Amino acid sequence: MYKAGIAGASGYTGYELIKLIHRHPHLEIGWLTGESSAGQNYDEIYPVQWNYPLISLDEALTRIEEVDVVFLCLPHAASMEAVKRFYATGIRVVDLSADFRLNDAAIYTRWYKEEHTAADLLQSAVYGLCEVYREQLKGSRLIAVPGCYPTSINLGLYPLAKAGWLGERIIADSKSGVSGAGRKAKLEYHFVEANENISPYNVGHRHRHIAEVEQVLNPANGKDRNYRVLFSPHLLPVNRGILSTMYVEVEAGVTESQVWDLYAESYANEPFIHLLPLGKGATLAHTVQSNRCAIGIIPADPARPNGQEYIITSSLDNLIKGASGQAIQCFNIAVGVDETAGLI
Amino acid sequence: MYKAGIAGASGYTGYELIKLIHRHPHLEIGWLTGESSAGQNYDEIYPVQWNYPLISLDEALTRIEEVDVVFLCLPHAASMEAVKRFYATGIRVVDLSADFRLNDAAIYTRWYKEEHTAADLLQSAVYGLCEVYREQLKGSRLIAVPGCYPTSINLGLYPLAKAGWLGERIIADSKSGVSGAGRKAKLEYHFVEANENISPYNVGHRHRHIAEVEQVLNPANGKDRNYRVLFSPHLLPVNRGILSTMYVEVEAGVTESQVWDLYAESYANEPFIHLLPLGKGATLAHTVQSNRCAIGIIPADPARPNGQEYIITSSLDNLIKGASGQAIQCFNIAVGVDETAGLI
Amino acid sequence: MYKAGIAGASGYTGYELIKLIHRHPHLEIGWLTGESSAGQNYDEIYPVQWNYPLISLDEALTRIEEVDVVFLCLPHAASMEAVKRFYATGIRVVDLSADFRLNDAAIYTRWYKEEHTAADLLQSAVYGLCEVYREQLKGSRLIAVPGCYPTSINLGLYPLAKAGWLGERIIADSKSGVSGAGRKAKLEYHFVEANENISPYNVGHRHRHIAEVEQVLNPANGKDRNYRVLFSPHLLPVNRGILSTMYVEVEAGVTESQVWDLYAESYANEPFIHLLPLGKGATLAHTVQSNRCAIGIIPADPARPNGQEYIITSSLDNLIKGASGQAIQCFNIAVGVDETAGLI
Amino acid sequence: MYKAGIAGASGYTGYELIKLIHRHPHLEIGWLTGESSAGQNYDEIYPVQWNYPLISLDEALTRIEEVDVVFLCLPHAASMEAVKRFYATGIRVVDLSADFRLNDAAIYTRWYKEEHTAADLLQSAVYGLCEVYREQLKGSRLIAVPGCYPTSINLGLYPLAKAGWLGERIIADSKSGVSGAGRKAKLEYHFVEANENISPYNVGHRHRHIAEVEQVLNPANGKDRNYRVLFSPHLLPVNRGILSTMYVEVEAGVTESQVWDLYAESYANEPFIHLLPLGKGATLAHTVQSNRCAIGIIPADPARPNGQEYIITSSLDNLIKGASGQAIQCFNIAVGVDETAGLI
Repeated sequence: MYKAGIAGASGYTGYELIKLIHRHPHLEIGWLTGESSAGQNYDEIYPVQWNYPLISLDEALTRIEEVDVVFLCLPHAASMEAVKRFYATGIRVVDLSADFRLNDAAIYTRWYKEEHTAADLLQSAVYGLCEVYREQLKGSRLIAVPGCYPTSINLGLYPLAKAGWLGERIIADSKSGVSGAGRKAKLEYHFVEANENISPYNVGHRHRHIAEVEQVLNPANGKDRNYRVLFSPHLLPVNRGILSTMYVEVEAGVTESQVWDLYAESYANEPFIHLLPLGKGATLAHTVQSNRCAIGIIPADPARPNGQEYIITSSLDNLIKGASGQAIQCFNIAVGVDETAGLI
Repeated sequence: MYKAGIAGASGYTGYELIKLIHRHPHLEIGWLTGESSAGQNYDEIYPVQWNYPLISLDEALTRIEEVDVVFLCLPHAASMEAVKRFYATGIRVVDLSADFRLNDAAIYTRWYKEEHTAADLLQSAVYGLCEVYREQLKGSRLIAVPGCYPTSINLGLYPLAKAGWLGERIIADSKSGVSGAGRKAKLEYHFVEANENISPYNVGHRHRHIAEVEQVLNPANGKDRNYRVLFSPHLLPVNRGILSTMYVEVEAGVTESQVWDLYAESYANEPFIHLLPLGKGATLAHTVQSNRCAIGIIPADPARPNGQEYIITSSLDNLIKGASGQAIQCFNIAVGVDETAGLI
Repeated sequence: MYKAGIAGASGYTGYELIKLIHRHPHLEIGWLTGESSAGQNYDEIYPVQWNYPLISLDEALTRIEEVDVVFLCLPHAASMEAVKRFYATGIRVVDLSADFRLNDAAIYTRWYKEEHTAADLLQSAVYGLCEVYREQLKGSRLIAVPGCYPTSINLGLYPLAKAGWLGERIIADSKSGVSGAGRKAKLEYHFVEANENISPYNVGHRHRHIAEVEQVLNPANGKDRNYRVLFSPHLLPVNRGILSTMYVEVEAGVTESQVWDLYAESYANEPFIHLLPLGKGATLAHTVQSNRCAIGIIPADPARPNGQEYIITSSLDNLIKGASGQAIQCFNIAVGVDETAGLI
Repeated sequence: MYKAGIAGASGYTGYELIKLIHRHPHLEIGWLTGESSAGQNYDEIYPVQWNYPLISLDEALTRIEEVDVVFLCLPHAASMEAVKRFYATGIRVVDLSADFRLNDAAIYTRWYKEEHTAADLLQSAVYGLCEVYREQLKGSRLIAVPGCYPTSINLGLYPLAKAGWLGERIIADSKSGVSGAGRKAKLEYHFVEANENISPYNVGHRHRHIAEVEQVLNPANGKDRNYRVLFSPHLLPVNRGILSTMYVEVEAGVTESQVWDLYAESYANEPFIHLLPLGKGATLAHTVQSNRCAIGIIPADPARPNGQEYIITSSLDNLIKGASGQAIQCFNIAVGVDETAGLI
């Protein structure tokens, strides 16, 4: 049995992580931290029966021997220092923030407008997109869990990119449930503002998550490509779930069945990829409350079969496959237990 | 044409009032105040094309001659002083807060835990439940617009109370959309917390709105009754609308058709009361986006016809009939224009 | 490992049951039936990866040796004959319909307007309210899983009834998510009709579920009481979850702490009862996606402590604790495995 | 005062039309038809107080002299014959179906898989996109009200197309509320299926509404262009509203301020176009419950100012500007009353 510490347990990803750990045959809760909630019990901040005390990060560091792995659910920038301190103790670290996802500190700074204060650790961190970097994850001690949007986009496009068939211009129109914005009392997430509404934000080439997509897709085929992603996130009036509708072109001459076979082979043994029949679109209902990513491949024009334009749809639960579930999946791979443990 | 000033225009009731005034044949916008938003234009705080500037309350008082009526959409307690200052200028005042609804300052203090600093005005204020106090509203210069919950309960029970048929024990189980809580960034109104949820709050004999129900029902029959209202508000995952499900007993011997006839006669000429056929329940869909109150009367037990137990259901739009629409209706009556002007 | 057959697997409770069985350490899917869907695979009727074939009930009966238990998720009346046929094979039967919940065929007929064609089995059936009838469930071969509404009401009131402290007049104002109405294409469950709405239906002494409440509460104290339940279900714009807000009176002289202690002791060892601190109300968020029932006890009037009026709130997930989860819990008890298996 | 007949009044667009007519200073209800509901009153099919009888289409034709204009809210294909019969009486006809929107019967047949049985009327019909075809609408006796999706797309792109600056490849990712699918009891529109979900459907070059976009944009600049629209509609869990997120390229060398000025001038006097500041995206909240279309223009890449890629967002209420409101606006223009009458 492994004991897990969770730093930053008061947000939605922390909450989800606890639920998953309760179901996990090899994991149990060690301690939880929550800076602004330190001193409270968990049942004071969520409608649950779990009366875990919330401690401070400093106290957690003094109790590092009580746990076997630390999951960090802290905001980006705040996570950098915490990861550094936990990692230095020799413990396994699974970071759900953005701070160790980009392997180039300069790119991090360009997108996040922060100096990276633990740049030397970037090369030790494995980007935890399990279906792509499974081998690197085995035994790894520092894992950067991918962002929710990039996971949906990268899993939807990686087979094409790896095959070298994916055109460099990508448009990803993504829709995310409100939990993706975190548990923050801001007017834009007020029920009356978000309900019966849908809002685009940071559209075009503006959202930080673009960097993770480019980092995964550019080298996928061995040759260095230069993908250009127009990414349009929208705030959707649902609690959880992301749907990415992606507009891409494949190389001329590649047929629809070649494309589909490529995905079918790439994901043949993946327990958490649900590849839909050719022409069917993914929906949130395919994946919400699960660790799956559903992928639907739709040739754009039925009147021009085997054309170059495709619409790739990809859905996942932003709190599970897009965060805490993938974190557990990474952990399972890293320590060598059944990859699906706790995730069914 | 009358010009309206709106004090506290940045909340949901202010926003709704502006929409109603735009449609009103005899009303137009004069100035708008918004303390924390003063200096901004209205299109900076709401997704609208209306670029009205928001001014301070102090400035509004210097521009009192520009308007013919002031609607106040301020929080309770804050409204007291503002009403006093506006009223002193001689202008007509329609107050949407709770501050002038109760005609007894001691009762106000008991429920609101505030001293009433304008108690001398309480006797000048008319409680604007139009269907009950229409005569008093004619020509009135200080109107207290009723609360949303009490409007739904009082309109649902007044005919029975007036007839002297209503038992003193009343249970009102009410469900309200989130806009009823105001435009405040609080965690409990965050989309993820309120969506796919329903929460009781301040249930029993705790919520301030009980005072308005007792004030209306107790004297309805001429003799002073002593109604006792158990009131259970619930936060409902919809933007707007209130449904009150009320459990009451009528006097022994009164038949179902007598009850229904009583309501039919009481509300025969009411443009905004929608009396449903006997046995049908009111729903939000009957009234949302309108100034109507729908009332459904259901004898409790089909196996015991003409029994004493009834379930009275009453629905309205909390922002319209429960606030800004009723404010306009009060104004229409007060100045003597068509009562339905701007409200169809 | 036990193999489960599911009859009527195409509805929401069947779907939920499959998910729970996938997580269960001692259960796996045998066959699934779906009359109108027979011949299709499960992934044709739900957005899932499970390609179980759906067979007919007749075929299932010829393949009875492939399973160890049959769960029936058929509509009431249809379930009677199916239960009879399965039970005759000697297999363990867990029926989620209403057909075997009432132990008196005459009462069944009065509420359901159907003759009971398997009345001789009624005495063999155990009513599966686990917290109340756990002993009877052990080893039982015919289990009637309680209705969703009655589970919320009975768990909320049973301790008081058992203690003999509960007044006979009960008002239960219940709110249920739309999945409670089943997977049927009817206009009243159309998104546009149900969303941003709440509708009372069958209120008063009309809904069939009242019979289950009276059957549980009347004999709870040993002496035969005659509880009278006014029950008002409302259709709530959420996918899942039931909240029952119950208005009751306790015996004079019983204090608030006596009431709370009574519940605390009654449910001290119950893994799926979440008793809230005195004065706190239950919400859907306490229980949705879990097998828990949350219970909140609120004295009605803070100005009259230790009075007789209480508001008891009770919430559960109608598809889990109100149906499929409780079915699994019953099965676990019946066969003697850990009662929480598959339900965490 | 004009009297309006409504054919097919039982759907959501008919319902909305009645509400708008009630507010209209120059229009009132004549008769309503509803084939399957004929013989019922309107308050039997909707939760309203309007007890208009529903008559059959045949009866309506015998009572043509009672009305001054007929609005048809029938399904496509069914509308063809009805329009022919009404038009033959000499009355003014406003058709909300798709049957007279395309001016080429062959294109109609290609997309709708139906022969056009009133092709001779196509040249008499004016396509009622008011902001583009206002002159043609004046005095017109046969008006085809545009589709909801095409209205959002065409209003968002027309200025660019007219200026000749719009590249021929257009991607429109649209999201529509469920009322757009009509008042039909189908499983996919069941609350539980649509809520907490988003589903793409008919994506690519498949949806019939594409024909209306190409018909408007191709000739906009005088020269015949050949626009190619990838259009991806999604079913959104809201009652009403459409957001179209459009990915386009403008001619090289055109600056951002030129683009914005173009829109500002094109729509300077349009009462129902809400042009947002450059860089702001449209949301449903900008337009729901109004006859407005909000348009937001966002250059794709802040790092490459004055580039060719733009994201144009456009929102409207599918039942108002996308159907019944635009129908009224067309009528207002046709008969020469204030274009905004009944629409504020």
